[in-house]
Amino acid sequence: MRPKINFTPGPSQLYFTVEDHVRTAFREGIPTLSHRSKQFEAIYRKSVDGLRTLLDIPENYTLVFTGSANEIWERIIQNLVEEKSFHLVNGSFSKRFFEIAQQLNKKPEKIEVAMGKGFDASMAIPAGTELIAVTHNETSSGVSLPMEVIAGLRAKNPGALLTVDAVSSLPYPAFDYTQFDSVFFSVQKGFGLPAGLGVWLINDACVAKAEQLLAKGISIGSYHSIPSLYSHALKHQNPETPNVLGIYLLAQVVEDMVRRGIQNIRKETEYKAAILYKALHDHGLINPFVQEKVNQSNTVIVAECGEHTEKITKLLVENGMQPGDGYGAFKKTQLRFANFPTHSKEQYELLVDTLAKV
Amino acid sequence: MRPKINFTPGPSQLYFTVEDHVRTAFREGIPTLSHRSKQFEAIYRKSVDGLRTLLDIPENYTLVFTGSANEIWERIIQNLVEEKSFHLVNGSFSKRFFEIAQQLNKKPEKIEVAMGKGFDASMAIPAGTELIAVTHNETSSGVSLPMEVIAGLRAKNPGALLTVDAVSSLPYPAFDYTQFDSVFFSVQKGFGLPAGLGVWLINDACVAKAEQLLAKGISIGSYHSIPSLYSHALKHQNPETPNVLGIYLLAQVVEDMVRRGIQNIRKETEYKAAILYKALHDHGLINPFVQEKVNQSNTVIVAECGEHTEKITKLLVENGMQPGDGYGAFKKTQLRFANFPTHSKEQYELLVDTLAKV
Repeated sequence: MRPKINFTPGPSQLYFTVEDHVRTAFREGIPTLSHRSKQFEAIYRKSVDGLRTLLDIPENYTLVFTGSANEIWERIIQNLVEEKSFHLVNGSFSKRFFEIAQQLNKKPEKIEVAMGKGFDASMAIPAGTELIAVTHNETSSGVSLPMEVIAGLRAKNPGALLTVDAVSSLPYPAFDYTQFDSVFFSVQKGFGLPAGLGVWLINDACVAKAEQLLAKGISIGSYHSIPSLYSHALKHQNPETPNVLGIYLLAQVVEDMVRRGIQNIRKETEYKAAILYKALHDHGLINPFVQEKVNQSNTVIVAECGEHTEKITKLLVENGMQPGDGYGAFKKTQLRFANFPTHSKEQYELLVDTLAKV
Repeated sequence: MRPKINFTPGPSQLYFTVEDHVRTAFREGIPTLSHRSKQFEAIYRKSVDGLRTLLDIPENYTLVFTGSANEIWERIIQNLVEEKSFHLVNGSFSKRFFEIAQQLNKKPEKIEVAMGKGFDASMAIPAGTELIAVTHNETSSGVSLPMEVIAGLRAKNPGALLTVDAVSSLPYPAFDYTQFDSVFFSVQKGFGLPAGLGVWLINDACVAKAEQLLAKGISIGSYHSIPSLYSHALKHQNPETPNVLGIYLLAQVVEDMVRRGIQNIRKETEYKAAILYKALHDHGLINPFVQEKVNQSNTVIVAECGEHTEKITKLLVENGMQPGDGYGAFKKTQLRFANFPTHSKEQYELLVDTLAKV
């Protein structure tokens, strides 16, 4: 049986080279490498250097590894907020980030809009906000935040740090890293890797802020505080025994992506998104859930299928494709389609052709 | 080239079935399973049920997964200590646990003895201690804490929770789980799995204590607080997207160990430890680092090799064996030997025969 094409937005389909890399990893003894060995440091470095090249990350950013993006939400609040964070909430994941700040006994505030809606940069940010938290791509609703909104927030709030959740968008977006201070993702989405690793990019301002909180006697955590992650990253190590195999696989897949060329990945992503959005627009029974073109994500595309959801799912599955369910309350009326680098143009063309038959 | 036998105490040699299980995992699509799917819940349950059987864990314990044992140190302090923890420190890892309590702005106290030394139960625990933290097996020094000491601490301090770091001893010890409230390990030691997963066993008293701190308005973390881990564990899920492949591999290896029989694993561990300790005692140039027999670990055996360390390492490597370096200041004068279920009797006999040639 041919395996189904997996369009669920996470964990999604593996990047097509992963299984080969796993085989090599076992042959070379990677899973049992000491995390204090020179060989591990070389893997760590390859992973970080590869990401710098692929994503054009500037020198004033340090890359560190955690167990998940969920953990990064917590570490951001612990390390970068004494009291006041401000959150742009438009779905389940941006809301969860806000709630984590509450659970850590901070005093977060938020602006909240309905699922499927986006933001412009006109909102007023409360005085004294230390950190603005935005979600570049709401995996629950398929809403993308335009770069102009991020730039607008930055221009109007020079005193606040700005952090970007890019969990389900990277490696696609061509970010201007001067417009924020921290960005993060988990590897099981756009990078097509087995879950169990978060990647967090922090600039010098984040390191300084964490040091400042620490100097005030505020606890910023222990082994995964920014100073601890940062000082180990300088040695190409993690504070704890990390997911060594995961870091190795990331290094290999990033190398594959660099070879393929990020411009090609971006162009293909846009082509695939364009044909699916066109199919949804032209369709009699299905519509794009996100109405405003400027907010339509290119990497997680949500279809409003209403009463036809079950029928469409069945048809796709019969044709070897697994769509993602709608999120939460939309489970029975929407379908979500991941558009990641591992999804080929041919797979998207098959998807579009099949949807046309509904 | 035959791969070297890896005696480093962590990450150690893989359990001999792991590579086959990885192949099956890819064939069955495990790495891309949604962590909210029924299939994942079945894997989670198999892993937990298998560990209950293998380690004879009572019903009032819940098993939860974290990114590492390092993380569990932090979560224990966050969730089980308002102010006062008390730590038995006799090496680098027990010391680190104490330091984490300091970094989380608690007021920990400790009793500290030299590397290589153990404890008896006679020490006075400060009044008001909420949590006693002991290390069953100090990976840095090869000191094991006798069960009688744990039972003695328990009897004398009924008001305190007691937590046991069993990172480098499980699955070997036959614990009496009524003598403590929490025990934890990471999978890359005795279970012979790729790093990137911590396993934490908590009893009802731990859940109650975390709820009590929360009710007082103390932050106990967010996604990995005990209430969050516990409520998800009841559904056989993790709060975040976990290391799905790691949990699957744990389930498979635990099944293999159950089939082999924990009594056989224990007997073989004791046989291997006995022949290595005898070889060290009888040797003219090498000695066991831990002098007191009652404190000699059966799972991490440390040899005091002095000026002969380099020569012995060279001889072992030439014969296809990789010893672990001594820890920290003992790097150039000691060697450490993991004695885990994956290390066969034949491998230990080869080790002992080779050491005899020095």
